[in-house]
Amino acid sequence: MVWALADWMTPRLQQVEQALIQWIDPQAPAGLGQAMRYAVLDGGKRLRSLLVLAAAQAVGGEGTASGSAALRAACAIELIHAYSLVHDDMPCMDNDVLRRGKPTVHVQFGEAQALLAGDALQALAFELITPPDGSVSAPVQAALAGLLARAAGYQGMAGGQAIDLASVGLALTEAQLRQMHRLKTGALLLCSVQMGAVCAGQPEARVMDALSRYGEALGLAFQVVDDILDVTADSATLGKTAGKDEAADKPTYVALMGLAPAQHYAQQLHAQALAALAESGLPVTQTQALRALADMVIHRNN
Amino acid sequence: MVWALADWMTPRLQQVEQALIQWIDPQAPAGLGQAMRYAVLDGGKRLRSLLVLAAAQAVGGEGTASGSAALRAACAIELIHAYSLVHDDMPCMDNDVLRRGKPTVHVQFGEAQALLAGDALQALAFELITPPDGSVSAPVQAALAGLLARAAGYQGMAGGQAIDLASVGLALTEAQLRQMHRLKTGALLLCSVQMGAVCAGQPEARVMDALSRYGEALGLAFQVVDDILDVTADSATLGKTAGKDEAADKPTYVALMGLAPAQHYAQQLHAQALAALAESGLPVTQTQALRALADMVIHRNN
Repeated sequence: MVWALADWMTPRLQQVEQALIQWIDPQAPAGLGQAMRYAVLDGGKRLRSLLVLAAAQAVGGEGTASGSAALRAACAIELIHAYSLVHDDMPCMDNDVLRRGKPTVHVQFGEAQALLAGDALQALAFELITPPDGSVSAPVQAALAGLLARAAGYQGMAGGQAIDLASVGLALTEAQLRQMHRLKTGALLLCSVQMGAVCAGQPEARVMDALSRYGEALGLAFQVVDDILDVTADSATLGKTAGKDEAADKPTYVALMGLAPAQHYAQQLHAQALAALAESGLPVTQTQALRALADMVIHRNN
Repeated sequence: MVWALADWMTPRLQQVEQALIQWIDPQAPAGLGQAMRYAVLDGGKRLRSLLVLAAAQAVGGEGTASGSAALRAACAIELIHAYSLVHDDMPCMDNDVLRRGKPTVHVQFGEAQALLAGDALQALAFELITPPDGSVSAPVQAALAGLLARAAGYQGMAGGQAIDLASVGLALTEAQLRQMHRLKTGALLLCSVQMGAVCAGQPEARVMDALSRYGEALGLAFQVVDDILDVTADSATLGKTAGKDEAADKPTYVALMGLAPAQHYAQQLHAQALAALAESGLPVTQTQALRALADMVIHRNN
């Protein structure tokens, strides 16, 4: 029987969605639970959570006792991603009123509640990966929390957003643009792979290095494709306003390199990601999902 | 020689301040480091960090290998507190332009940078307590991260702020008011004590329970005294606008109980905190700092 990404993804997406529903308490005080759920549930491609689960499987950690750690890490990274979107959409940042076809959190619940919901989602992410019930070992909890904190903070996502904020209208070099994206979106994607890899314990350095190179290449490819789609896709397919980067005079790979070179660069990064997996020495039967997710990132149309 | 709180505090305050300076990277991208430092350094009474260090000392953990964990936890809790103030001051929340006599972060750096600085400070707090260098054991890292996440999130500080937001102008019962403060300010103060206590490893349940009761009573006392000072102190002594709660029609203990009963209640809570320490079974020579901090909370005039 041929291995198919869809067969692999479907049950895992359901598992992640059910876990998120279970772990985001709708009874959180004063409407905060509703705002948090609205921000997280029923939307998004869940690429980050799939990367966690695929990386855990690659090192042999999914389906064992560490499956619980992987599912928790998969949900935690989605909470961080979701909180960043909530704050990013706020009037003082991108001032977006629609996301995934729905009013953004601050439009639906007010700015103050959106601010708090984002803050609470970040804390909840760390809560999920540090369960006091012994279901995740202390070394795995510590490793997951350390990876997530570094990827979310000033050396990662928040730092990248600060660069983005300061870069609108500026002519960035390719190196500067890569640095911005490496932090802004790349850090969380890389972190997803690394979190999955540590769920079964500390993998060999060679494996961790190879998976990290995979995660870095994939993270960059994701952004290059994002920039390409902004000029090649229409808004309906994209699910968000196409041509927005150009209109906002935001630096993009397409603006910097031109469309065809950007497409070529995305292909190169895809090849780098696959090469890193081959170098990991992990059995090809265990890295199927990671390979297929790299393909998906390159071939996606939204 | 008589033990004096000032002698105990002075070197520890310096240590915390130096560690914060060391750990908040001024080179964080695009001005984020400056905004984070501005939000955290050179201000605040550092009550939370002192509680961490005092609790660590109470269980015998300060001055040993776990001293490193206690200092990290002490700084982490200050970062969470600082981030909450940055976000709380923003126009969509309390819209405060001054804090500790200086322009608030969003006034100084803009709203977007304030939002990001707060977000990055929360992540940095978790980073500090999960060092990859082995200086803090994995079980202590996991315990600290779990405590901090729960205290900062929807079951703690963020939840309390959501209740606060929803309560302005409403007539709360004393139980509702207590619940709001238990989350909004109490959770972090309790967490400070608990984090200190776990720095040397998992203390006995009896000790942890007693220290938690101390932390809860102290947290509530802190808020009651806050409400009292809002009506009894002048703005210069307070370092912030006096009478603000009343003007904003915010529910307070003084509004609910009257001034004298609120003062009496604060005394009761102080006695409860000291009783809990006595019940902990810890040597009185080790709990001196915790006792003195409880006195300070009750007798403070700002």
